[in-house]
Amino acid sequence: MTFPVVGMVGGGQLARMTHEAGIPLGIRFRILSDTAQDSAAQVAADVTVGDYRDLDTLRAFAQGCDVITFDHEHVPTEHLRALEADGVAVRPGPDALVHAQDKGVMRAKLAEIGVPCPRNRIVADPADVTRFAAETAGYPLVLKTVRGGYDGKGVWFVRAEADAADAFRAGVPVLAEEKVDFVRELAANVVRSPHGQAVAYPVVESVQVDGVCDTMIAPAPGLSEALSAQAQRLALTVAAELGVVGHLAVELFETADGRILVNELAMRPHNSGHWTMDGAATSQFANHLRAVLDLPLGDPRPRAPWTVMANVLGGDYPDMYAGYLHCMARDPGLKIHMYGKDVKPGRKVGHVTTYGDDLPDVRERARHAADYLRGTIDE
Amino acid sequence: MTFPVVGMVGGGQLARMTHEAGIPLGIRFRILSDTAQDSAAQVAADVTVGDYRDLDTLRAFAQGCDVITFDHEHVPTEHLRALEADGVAVRPGPDALVHAQDKGVMRAKLAEIGVPCPRNRIVADPADVTRFAAETAGYPLVLKTVRGGYDGKGVWFVRAEADAADAFRAGVPVLAEEKVDFVRELAANVVRSPHGQAVAYPVVESVQVDGVCDTMIAPAPGLSEALSAQAQRLALTVAAELGVVGHLAVELFETADGRILVNELAMRPHNSGHWTMDGAATSQFANHLRAVLDLPLGDPRPRAPWTVMANVLGGDYPDMYAGYLHCMARDPGLKIHMYGKDVKPGRKVGHVTTYGDDLPDVRERARHAADYLRGTIDE
Repeated sequence: MTFPVVGMVGGGQLARMTHEAGIPLGIRFRILSDTAQDSAAQVAADVTVGDYRDLDTLRAFAQGCDVITFDHEHVPTEHLRALEADGVAVRPGPDALVHAQDKGVMRAKLAEIGVPCPRNRIVADPADVTRFAAETAGYPLVLKTVRGGYDGKGVWFVRAEADAADAFRAGVPVLAEEKVDFVRELAANVVRSPHGQAVAYPVVESVQVDGVCDTMIAPAPGLSEALSAQAQRLALTVAAELGVVGHLAVELFETADGRILVNELAMRPHNSGHWTMDGAATSQFANHLRAVLDLPLGDPRPRAPWTVMANVLGGDYPDMYAGYLHCMARDPGLKIHMYGKDVKPGRKVGHVTTYGDDLPDVRERARHAADYLRGTIDE
Repeated sequence: MTFPVVGMVGGGQLARMTHEAGIPLGIRFRILSDTAQDSAAQVAADVTVGDYRDLDTLRAFAQGCDVITFDHEHVPTEHLRALEADGVAVRPGPDALVHAQDKGVMRAKLAEIGVPCPRNRIVADPADVTRFAAETAGYPLVLKTVRGGYDGKGVWFVRAEADAADAFRAGVPVLAEEKVDFVRELAANVVRSPHGQAVAYPVVESVQVDGVCDTMIAPAPGLSEALSAQAQRLALTVAAELGVVGHLAVELFETADGRILVNELAMRPHNSGHWTMDGAATSQFANHLRAVLDLPLGDPRPRAPWTVMANVLGGDYPDMYAGYLHCMARDPGLKIHMYGKDVKPGRKVGHVTTYGDDLPDVRERARHAADYLRGTIDE
């Protein structure tokens, strides 16, 4: 058998869905998981339980893998460099991945390649934050630790200098960014392979609630051809300039005056791309695998006029399965994706996807199912 | 966690693809596999290696499963009755499954419920075969052992009495069937749940080569609305009358004079339904799981005007992965499904699916990919 072995660091739902996409490709998929009960570990055959922060663990895991890739971006850069020095194919590599791990490095690089961002700089202390405010658009503004943030953590919305102290407590460099007056958030996701082939997914609208992705609408309604093309070209440029291999999610702000600015980057399959599992010819997970294996990429085009994904977050009700009867009966076209995770309030435990011709109907169906499964509504 | 445990007996590619469909549903999937290297065992977390012919093994396997279902139809009927007597939910149950396991029982039941079949009867010896020939359409005709046949095995195409001896060597009852002058073969597949809800997939055309399914075209080209509806109604009737739970594949002959006759039944996901993974709103695997779990069934409607599936059979070339580069580059829309099985000549090692608006193009794309992967062609 000549099928390659792909090792993914991290056993969360991204690894679970990557494993799902790997099954039909016949590739062998190995997971380095925190515990044996992690989302992906529950459904995969080849699971190693271990600490990704330990270099010996990573080295042992990489042994026998043809390529290493990631469910999350927390693997220390120096460990990845060590693996590369060992001759392991790390995709995306540390030189690219650092731009997803360190917001300061990311902002500096994007400025260098001329990709538009909110005005920003590293700030030393609350007084420096006030100086930054004066240099740009004033308060309120946003503070972010350069490393470690995700799903709204490590991000502070700051109205005055007195609010700024929290961000500095972690002792990690802090990046200040002007608060963008955006009309909405978008995501322009692309996949790039080692030899430079790339595909761009339709630009999607991202509805965020409390700093967490809530609903994605594909394609973004009312987005002009010009702005859509600009967003896709921007994402392809970022992928090429940073040497990304695999899936790159570029989260964007669309301003009232029709400009797009980069918010965040993620170099892995991403929440903003889950809709592709049911709504595109090739899912982000399948294309991520193809890219890290240096296989030709699959068709990224949508299969339906509108596709909507809604996250299912944990509510007060611990039993997700109990909601299936109602949701499936109500909507035979509903696509449910559960992650096998214990329900905790606000935790991403799954997502639902709907698609069709009528956007308000597609949105309502997704919204209803997500709310019903969460327990927010009961009919 | 309240997600149910589904136990599937058999670790072949049908179990592999059922596991794939179970991942997003969040259900827990357990496999009873012949070996640890079987197709499904390679990709699933919960694998028990054991002999499905041993009742103690089955009992231990069923322990802790909410429902037992099947990747194949070889589990002895008496064992299934014993499990049912233990209180295990066996779906489909032995009373239904016996009609897929024993062709004599199947033919008798279909006659009883008025479902059209080729003329047939059990025959005692070659002389009796000749008497049957005289009663019906003469030689050539078809002999089948009532139990144990699949993919062309246990089936004899008999031109004269002298050819009939082989069929009787196994010491198993032999069914004689008139050779039907069919214009093509069809499959009308349905899924039925314990409370009687059922969905019917589009009727597909099945191109067989040497008794093995080769290509499926969905929907069957040029099939009249009337004949399509008749085929679906026939399949739904068979499912209801036999008490099938789960997927039922009804393989049909379409005669020159526009009649349909039942050829074979299978009560499990089936080769004729693989196209649904990429071509229908809900795959046969997802709907089979919903049915055996008594969940509402998913939308069976097609997602593309034409979907074609071509089996990938082993040829002389052992390396399936080597063909990916060419096939994926040539056709970014191609969907490859490999089963992780070692290549042996004529063995089903995977399938490819294409879809689109232009049937000749969709067929050519599938044909080319299957031939290239098999090694029949090299460009």
